[in-house]
Formats: sequence, C-alpha cells, structure tokens
Amino acid sequence: MSTSSTGAPRRPTMADVARAAGVSLKTVSRVVNNVPTVDAALAERVLAAVTELGFRRNDMARNLRSRTTSATVGLLIEDLANPFYSAIAAAAAECALAHDTMLITASSEEDGDRERRLLLEMCERRVDGLLVVPAAADQVYLRAEIDLGTPVVFLDRPPTNLRTDTVLIDNARGARSAIEYLVAKGHRRIGVLSDWLSIYTMRERMSAAEAALERARVPYRPDLIRYGLHTLADTETAVEAMLDSDEPPTALFALNNRLTLGALSVLNRRGSDAVIVGFDDFETARLMPHPLTIISYDAREMGRVGAELLFRRIAGDASRPQTVVIPTTLIERSTG
Amino acid sequence: MSTSSTGAPRRPTMADVARAAGVSLKTVSRVVNNVPTVDAALAERVLAAVTELGFRRNDMARNLRSRTTSATVGLLIEDLANPFYSAIAAAAAECALAHDTMLITASSEEDGDRERRLLLEMCERRVDGLLVVPAAADQVYLRAEIDLGTPVVFLDRPPTNLRTDTVLIDNARGARSAIEYLVAKGHRRIGVLSDWLSIYTMRERMSAAEAALERARVPYRPDLIRYGLHTLADTETAVEAMLDSDEPPTALFALNNRLTLGALSVLNRRGSDAVIVGFDDFETARLMPHPLTIISYDAREMGRVGAELLFRRIAGDASRPQTVVIPTTLIERSTG
Repeated sequence: MSTSSTGAPRRPTMADVARAAGVSLKTVSRVVNNVPTVDAALAERVLAAVTELGFRRNDMARNLRSRTTSATVGLLIEDLANPFYSAIAAAAAECALAHDTMLITASSEEDGDRERRLLLEMCERRVDGLLVVPAAADQVYLRAEIDLGTPVVFLDRPPTNLRTDTVLIDNARGARSAIEYLVAKGHRRIGVLSDWLSIYTMRERMSAAEAALERARVPYRPDLIRYGLHTLADTETAVEAMLDSDEPPTALFALNNRLTLGALSVLNRRGSDAVIVGFDDFETARLMPHPLTIISYDAREMGRVGAELLFRRIAGDASRPQTVVIPTTLIERSTG
Repeated sequence: MSTSSTGAPRRPTMADVARAAGVSLKTVSRVVNNVPTVDAALAERVLAAVTELGFRRNDMARNLRSRTTSATVGLLIEDLANPFYSAIAAAAAECALAHDTMLITASSEEDGDRERRLLLEMCERRVDGLLVVPAAADQVYLRAEIDLGTPVVFLDRPPTNLRTDTVLIDNARGARSAIEYLVAKGHRRIGVLSDWLSIYTMRERMSAAEAALERARVPYRPDLIRYGLHTLADTETAVEAMLDSDEPPTALFALNNRLTLGALSVLNRRGSDAVIVGFDDFETARLMPHPLTIISYDAREMGRVGAELLFRRIAGDASRPQTVVIPTTLIERSTG
C-alpha cells in the first residue's frame, strides 16, 4: 500500500481495483471470491491491479471474525496415515497452537483435483494461511488467493507457476550420498526403486542417483531402474523380478519409506543378503533384521520451519519468498 | 422441543430459559457461552432448563455461518505422530470430507489441561461436533456444550461424568487372548508392560491380563508386572531389569505399540529369545526379526465408526447414546 505525505494511507477498495483494471466492480468481486467462470485475461488484469494497489480482501473479514472465533490455518498433505506426513502435521499443529491458531488438516491422496477442491474450500472459509504438499500439475488456481493476501507455504515439493515460500529436503544430496556409499562398498549392480516420477521428490532423487551412478562409471542397466511403484505390491513385484534376473542387484536404493518396506519384505522372505539404502527414516528402522542404511532428515523440522514461515507472513512479513532446504544425513540404522 | 396443537412449534429462546431457571438473561448467556465464572449451582439450573425446553444455542449461529463457510468438526487425539492416532485421524478426515466438512485436529499430549483448553477453543469457534480421545480426569467441562446441542463422540476411552456415544476397542478380550496364547505355549513367567494406569485402555488391558493369569494359575510375580512406562527409555530400562533378574520372563505382553517397540529393541540387543505379544498392530510388525504376535484391531474403523456416529448426531439423530466395541484379533505377525 502506498503512503501519502498528506496523512494516513487510505486502504484501497474493490472500486479502486475495478477502476485501475478497467473492469466492472462485479468482475473484481468475482475474481476476489474465486468464482471460476471469470475470463482468464480479465482475471489477470484484476490481479495485476490488486498487486499494484496492494488491495487485501481479507482485512475486513478477518477483523470481523476475530471478535467471535480464533484463527485457523489449513494443512494439505498426501496421506495423514503415512508417518512422514503425520510428523509434519504434528509439528505444524504444535506451532499453530503456540500462535493460538487451530489447524485444519486434509489429505490429497496424490490426486490433483482433490487438492484443488480441498484448498479452495479452506480458502472459502477464510483460513489465515495454507501449508501445502502439492500433488496437482500446477497450483495456479491459488494465485488469486495469494495475491489477495492469504499466505501459502509449500512443503516437500515446490509449487508450479507460483512464487512463494517453500521448504524442501536436500533430495539431490541425499540421493548422491546413497549411491556414493554403495559404490564405496564395492557395489556395481545397484537397483533403484522409485514411486511415480510425476512426484517432484522422486524426479529429484532419481536424477541425482543416475548422475552419481554415471560419475562412478557404473554400467547403465535399465532393468535395474524401476519407477512408477506406488504401492507395496508394485514394489514387491518389481524387487522379485530384479532378484530373479540373471544378474541380480547386490544392492538396492529405495527412494521413499514405502519402497524400503516393500524391498525389505521381499529380501527377508527370500533370505537375500542384498544391501538396502532407503530414503526416509522410520521408527522401526533400527529394529530391522536386514542391513539397512537410511537417508534421514528431520520431517518434524520441515513442518515446524514451514509453519513458522507461514506465521511470519500472516504477521505481515512481505519480504522476498524464501526456499529453505532441510539437510539429509546417511545413517546405518540396522542392528542386523 | 414440544409441539403445540395450535400451530408450528416456537423455538425456545434464551429468555424462556432464563424464566424457567429463575435466573437473569445474563446468567443464561454466560452459561451458554462457557464463561467459566458462573456459579456451579446456577449453571446446573440453567442447563436443566435448557434440557427441559430443548433450547439449542447453535441453531442461529449455524444458519448464519452456513451461508459463508462450510462445516467443521474437531478431532482431539493424544499425538498425531503416533500411527494409531494418525490412522484414526485419516479415517475421520475421509468421513468428514464425504460430509462436506473440514476436520480440525489437535493433540492433547496426554495433558488434561491442554485437552480442556483445546476442546473449549474448538467449541468457541462453533464446530458442528467433536471426536475426542479423552485424557483429562473428567470431561464435565463439555456438559454445557453437549446440552446446548454440540454432539460429542468419544474414541478409545469413555468419558468420565458424561453420557454420550463412545467407540472402544475390546481391550479385555484382546488382553485375555494374549495371556491365554502365552499360557497355551507353556509360559509361566510372563512379564506385563503397561503405560500409565491413569489411561483407561491400560487399566482395562492390565486387569484382564491379571485375571487371565490368575485363571491359568500362573504364580503371582509382582516384579514381572511393570506399569507407568510412558517413554521408550522407561520401557527399555524396565525390560533390561526384568531380563537381569534371577528368574527372567520367558515371554512379555506389551500393552501398546510403544511398549512393544521398547521391548523388541532390548530383546534384539540382548539376543534374548523371549516371546513378545504386543497390543496394537504396526506397519513393520511383520518385518521384525523377533517372534512377534500382535493383538490387532482396525484403528481406521474406530475413526470411521466414530465419525459416522457423529454425523448422524449432527443430522439430528437424538436416540439413546451408543457404545460400539471394535473387535480384536490375535495374529502371529513375525516372519522371524
């Protein structure tokens, strides 16, 4: 908002936005209230005026509400029942409580339409901010909300087509350290297990793993690179097939905790002594009977840092969007 | 609400309640809005009048709200990062979504004051209903909310001093089957590991286990009955001490998943072949190197059944409060 030398700044109104954008007040209202039928070019003009004038829809709604109820923030993750996400949720809830704020949680189940629907519903109820692990192909549908003053922090994966605060894991370094560890132990036939490559973390980990394999001059073996493994059953089938091949891998790198469990299950059943390195720590990792090395990081810290960033934005911090990277550590977890 | 033969029923107002209770309108308002300074006897008179007249505070607030935002329910659990609770939360969120409702989640961390504060905050923001795993000594502080029309369903543990819907696990049957299984395998020195006995499920499981031990004429060995083990470290210390005794146990019954992990950790480290039966299933149970038998039940089903009950109440079901019991199954999980 611009200030003037003649007195206190006047808050821009919807009418100011309409004038600056050269559109009707009704069009501004529709953009501000997320009515989906607004023409994209018109919406773009309205949002440009919103940004230029520093118009904020929520000021009044928030002030009115604060007299009757306290604040809320929304958290959208993939699946609350996965320990990675429940650690993030627990840390975010803790931080929200310290800010006298309640946390609304919902799971996208890796479904982009569901993500969009849940986040726009949270916006409709005027949450003070959003923490999002994005699954959809892009998050441009949040642009109007962000321009109108609802801060959004992305966790684990960056948004597409938006500039906003993001907290990521150091995926590339973690994957590189996994491959370097296995190569240093003398492994040359290393199987790599990945979930869908539509997931940002999988792409990052996979390309860093492939680059590290190449740097170590490990011969390229396409049959040892398996992706699209989204369920335990997918993973078990893929690992069985690798072990049944003429030149089975002597080591596996599993790019997330679900893949690690699937691989462990097959190796145990088959009595295989292939080594496993798994991305993502889990509570019982140290109790596993099989040699197990983990690319570990602090998932609660991701939730905490993301929530703290969000509350700074809610309190008015308008500095440049930040990307915070949570480091990884390679840990030999198994007692086996 | 009573109907009259002369026309549509008139909804009782706060003034009607004040008249019936013989108190001022201000007193009614204070009770209805949870102001904590109201004299207990006065509050009791107001709530009696509320019940008799069928007064509902929320009717108007809900109708007003429904024009701008959609519905919310609150879920209070012990700790979102524990897989038992995150399974409940995931199922409740799923069910809420099917009812176009958002779920607010918070963790009590087994702290009664925190429970009370969080639940009353949720009530202040006029949630449509509450799902609660209670930790406090009693829940009488919710009585006014319930009488005023906010349905509450308790999960895993019944409330104290309230009559309302409750979903429980069949703790007694689960604990009995664990002891009978171990006795049938020939064990006579069975260690029992329990968390705080202030927790309902621990008391239920412990007394059923003790009764089963007595029925099986297993000699009473107080050094093998350990309770108050709330952390992994507590548990590991207790198990170490049992194993170091002159007559160590040949089997352990751990009354929850945290206790099972603590016991497994010590047995692995010591190379002990003592058998473990653990209450609560967990994802990696089948991968454990140690003989492991689990008292399993469907935690998601508890969340689902509780949320369905809650939405029936929100939709107006005024039938007698129910207690639903989720069955347990004994499963030999380990491949070891």
